[in-house]
Amino acid sequence: MGPVHLTSTRPETLPRLLTLLKSASSLGAQIVLFPETALTTFFPRHLITSPSELESYFDSGSTLLTSPNTAPLFSLAKDLNIDVSIGFAERDDDGKGYNTSVYFSASKGEIVAKYRKVHLPGTKEPFENPDAVNQLEKRYFEPGNLGFQAFRAPGLVEGVVKKDSPGADADVKGRGDPILGMMICNDRRWVEEWRCYGLQGVELVLCGYNTAGYAPDLWGTRKPMTPEEAEMDAVFHHKLCMQGNSYMNSCFSVSAAKAGLEDGKYDLIGGSCITSPEGHVLAEAKTKEDEIVFAEIDLEDCRQGKEKTFDFGRHRRIDQYGPITVQSGVVEPELLE
Amino acid sequence: MGPVHLTSTRPETLPRLLTLLKSASSLGAQIVLFPETALTTFFPRHLITSPSELESYFDSGSTLLTSPNTAPLFSLAKDLNIDVSIGFAERDDDGKGYNTSVYFSASKGEIVAKYRKVHLPGTKEPFENPDAVNQLEKRYFEPGNLGFQAFRAPGLVEGVVKKDSPGADADVKGRGDPILGMMICNDRRWVEEWRCYGLQGVELVLCGYNTAGYAPDLWGTRKPMTPEEAEMDAVFHHKLCMQGNSYMNSCFSVSAAKAGLEDGKYDLIGGSCITSPEGHVLAEAKTKEDEIVFAEIDLEDCRQGKEKTFDFGRHRRIDQYGPITVQSGVVEPELLE
Repeated sequence: MGPVHLTSTRPETLPRLLTLLKSASSLGAQIVLFPETALTTFFPRHLITSPSELESYFDSGSTLLTSPNTAPLFSLAKDLNIDVSIGFAERDDDGKGYNTSVYFSASKGEIVAKYRKVHLPGTKEPFENPDAVNQLEKRYFEPGNLGFQAFRAPGLVEGVVKKDSPGADADVKGRGDPILGMMICNDRRWVEEWRCYGLQGVELVLCGYNTAGYAPDLWGTRKPMTPEEAEMDAVFHHKLCMQGNSYMNSCFSVSAAKAGLEDGKYDLIGGSCITSPEGHVLAEAKTKEDEIVFAEIDLEDCRQGKEKTFDFGRHRRIDQYGPITVQSGVVEPELLE
Repeated sequence: MGPVHLTSTRPETLPRLLTLLKSASSLGAQIVLFPETALTTFFPRHLITSPSELESYFDSGSTLLTSPNTAPLFSLAKDLNIDVSIGFAERDDDGKGYNTSVYFSASKGEIVAKYRKVHLPGTKEPFENPDAVNQLEKRYFEPGNLGFQAFRAPGLVEGVVKKDSPGADADVKGRGDPILGMMICNDRRWVEEWRCYGLQGVELVLCGYNTAGYAPDLWGTRKPMTPEEAEMDAVFHHKLCMQGNSYMNSCFSVSAAKAGLEDGKYDLIGGSCITSPEGHVLAEAKTKEDEIVFAEIDLEDCRQGKEKTFDFGRHRRIDQYGPITVQSGVVEPELLE
């Protein structure tokens, strides 16, 4: 998706999503992923002090299928028989905010899975430096409290005998519905999240994002870079994470950016792409505007990795991994001397 | 390194290492990494039934600095003031076998760290298929029992005030000796090992390897590939792991292959490389023969990642990572229906 501005209204933005959905349908898409906070600008870059303004960027997690701001998307998805995953700022019934993605199953006509972003980047307080672009996700959102729950997307695979079907032919390699997992933006840089999905046999990871192309070096630790170099590096890092983690967990991935100059001046990278379980990029965005990135994939391609190099049960050594769940931060080894 | 053959003798192979060490010294190298099982062929590809033949590929872990098979290497390293890390098949004092790396500190004149490979690939029993190339590491070696212990390499950084020095100037950003970690071959594909090192603040990962360029598809799950395509893909996967995990743990890495047609016919990939904390390849091998891959690196380049995007203490959510240390293999999500 191209940018959505602070001045963009819901009635301007929603039709863009519907147009994209129709275009995807004409290509034969079965699943469409929209970016993180696809319905609005990426507002956490701003310190918003007006409660009513802040609320205008949020949607209730429980009324997505009925609210006029969102219902037309899911209604069209059902009509087109396309599953849709989309990111939005969620206000839950207790008034808490989350950076959320849902998965809508066209065959069920329901939201069958919800994910709340766990790895919130940025800070709670705005930067004092007036040149800084804020990243206030830690202010507006709670860390996700739904874990990393992979799920089977019903009704997507035609003509494949399910493992538990009574009439399953022993000669047919049975499989259940595809196993999917959702993550959001910064989550994709965290190997633990990918592994938690991998440990559920995930075959396809969906990741929407809004990633800044350039930010002033407030830490003073970076080598000097032009904005163009910084953006190239940010796209490189994005793809490196998607490719590397897809390979190391033997799964496909789809990532979808909101890109371009949002609010007229804050550069977001593009780089939406689809990667294979061998870590290759199968398709990628060519623009920073509204655009379809499409690939036809065969989930059987996950098997080579899952049954050989990354056969977790045979090769993982959990007795050695203790620090990963015990220790958040760095504990340096003692000096030898 | 180019290949070492079954027919290669120790007195043929050791001088190659000494020559490489001298060449590295002439470039000003402070650390040299040799490959996995650098002293012999990668013998786990063979079913060896003669105990005396098998023992000829092993070295005692406790006599490296005195055995004529290895002492000249460390003696030269001390003379040249170069730290050396090298992989070898280790027979410990209890008769157990390990796939091991050691780190020799020139300034100490001692082996200051030892690592035993944790992620042993392959099988215990040879394949029945006569076309298969065996990978019998699980037969000849025990899984490493020394954990992932990062260590500080003494005496490598000149003129930098140490944190614990009595006269440390408050205006100087102090650092201790560089923090290193060792891994071996297949280990590099396992994010848990990188993360365990990352959680110790690792600045430089050393990884020797022997990776087959092509093997028949015994699993029947891979798309048909020519040997050339398979080798290109294997190099791609190698670099993807080194680049991705360096980036996601904000550390440099050095990887060193034994490459070429070993034992005259078993193809090993090249691709030895040095990667930066931003995931870029700084230097890489151009041949599959004995060759120096050299880069000068600044460990301060790790800071940007460690203090910002990958500031573990601020961003990791260990309460969510439970399955990683509890569950070896895959547990698929329940069917929704």
